[in-house]
Amino acid sequence: MPAHATDPRPMLRVNDVTKTSTRSVDQFDRVVVEAPLAISVDQKTLLTTMRTPGHDEELAVGWLLSEAEIKASADIISVERVSASELRHWGVEEESAVDTVLAELGAGVVPPRPRAYLTSSSCGVCSSDVLATTPKPGVALHSEDWVITPQAAHVLIKQMRCEQKMFDLTGSLHAAALAGPDNQLLVVREDVGRHNAVDKVLGNAFLEGNFPLTDHILVVSGRVSYEIVTKALSASVAAIVAVSGPTTLAVDLARAHGLVLIGFTRDDRLNVYSGKERVKL
Amino acid sequence: MPAHATDPRPMLRVNDVTKTSTRSVDQFDRVVVEAPLAISVDQKTLLTTMRTPGHDEELAVGWLLSEAEIKASADIISVERVSASELRHWGVEEESAVDTVLAELGAGVVPPRPRAYLTSSSCGVCSSDVLATTPKPGVALHSEDWVITPQAAHVLIKQMRCEQKMFDLTGSLHAAALAGPDNQLLVVREDVGRHNAVDKVLGNAFLEGNFPLTDHILVVSGRVSYEIVTKALSASVAAIVAVSGPTTLAVDLARAHGLVLIGFTRDDRLNVYSGKERVKL
Repeated sequence: MPAHATDPRPMLRVNDVTKTSTRSVDQFDRVVVEAPLAISVDQKTLLTTMRTPGHDEELAVGWLLSEAEIKASADIISVERVSASELRHWGVEEESAVDTVLAELGAGVVPPRPRAYLTSSSCGVCSSDVLATTPKPGVALHSEDWVITPQAAHVLIKQMRCEQKMFDLTGSLHAAALAGPDNQLLVVREDVGRHNAVDKVLGNAFLEGNFPLTDHILVVSGRVSYEIVTKALSASVAAIVAVSGPTTLAVDLARAHGLVLIGFTRDDRLNVYSGKERVKL
Repeated sequence: MPAHATDPRPMLRVNDVTKTSTRSVDQFDRVVVEAPLAISVDQKTLLTTMRTPGHDEELAVGWLLSEAEIKASADIISVERVSASELRHWGVEEESAVDTVLAELGAGVVPPRPRAYLTSSSCGVCSSDVLATTPKPGVALHSEDWVITPQAAHVLIKQMRCEQKMFDLTGSLHAAALAGPDNQLLVVREDVGRHNAVDKVLGNAFLEGNFPLTDHILVVSGRVSYEIVTKALSASVAAIVAVSGPTTLAVDLARAHGLVLIGFTRDDRLNVYSGKERVKL
């Protein structure tokens, strides 16, 4: 397993959520690393994408295979990985130094069109630069006395599940939901894309004139990545409650803004990765 | 539930895979629809993304919320959905007619930078235009006598699961794997991104001089979308075996090229969505 593929983050683990007395313990969780990688051909960055570090050359080659007309081994002459810290050492400025794979293509191969997946790309594993360049929420995420209980988090996940009509039919779809300050479920949306389901839910709130979403809870069926947290922050929601786990960058960004981030809300337990002072046991 | 969110596709359902006699039945499965949506501001397309049809205006607004500086209701003056067929009716040529949300932003709002997620964007729900513009594999996917058995598919899923070291630590990560013509597992890769895990596996094969991947099997832990199938075709793999289900566009694209597509490989069963003549019961 590659170095830097997982990284510890503090979290509060809450067990026996639906029993009369919950048990909780502060511990460290191994969290999957999410960090940017640039793919560059002829000194030109064609893609900056979030990925889990490790086998970066393979990732770059695999991406080139599907984006360029690669037919033979000679069509990719070389790939070389340069880390963000090496780039800084060579004088690339802090903000734009990101792990990079430099690829050289054969003479006859037309390089893919550039694709910018990230509006601001920076940082290696540390994530501090990404955090520094992420826009801050415009308004407060919480009222002074807002709290969430582990029981409410579990109820919301169950209520969302009951509304996943397309999942029931197809067995393969993501869902997102929004709950109001009284923990009432306001809307549930499903989509093949994790981000799309979240966009639909937040878009619905905006179109209903319900914005920003202070004291609201965003519920998601899947994993919580950097992009999901940025969407939550752009809407000023108070908390994210997820069935699956978060990435390092998601945890770090949530902590930087005091956004409550709860993961692995299943099997009568949950993990609080950020904002535990807002979780009432 | 919106119209067109699921669509039936023929499939061969195989039950009791690990028992001495399997049972199989031809039936129709409800498959989640994946189709392109364009988001346009001031007559300019800013994003073309795959999504499940339904609540398209909400999706567009949600995307704008996270990409532009939207602070008040007045910052989004209007959103209007125009279907691909309406655009064709108005004289937009077949290839570039795609379901579109036209948004008008307030005077002071800077629109997001354009992002082209799709190299060729076309079609509404039908998917025929997308299929027509997808590049064909350069070489044959299968030798004449290549077949796959349901038992082999299940063994590959189990073997990949045993190699998901990061998943064991974190509980939240995608995996992809590649098996050779003898059904031997060659490589397993994990990543926060579904596409990244597939890119790493195919990139590994290329760097090992093992390319194209005729008679090889791509194994994936997650859902199978259009993009996963295009990556498989670009490498000429013979089959995709997935733990989860495919989208309509993934099924249609696989069928158009004779790529074997097997989904829901779990709980002692599987569904063959494409290439059932290559599945030996």
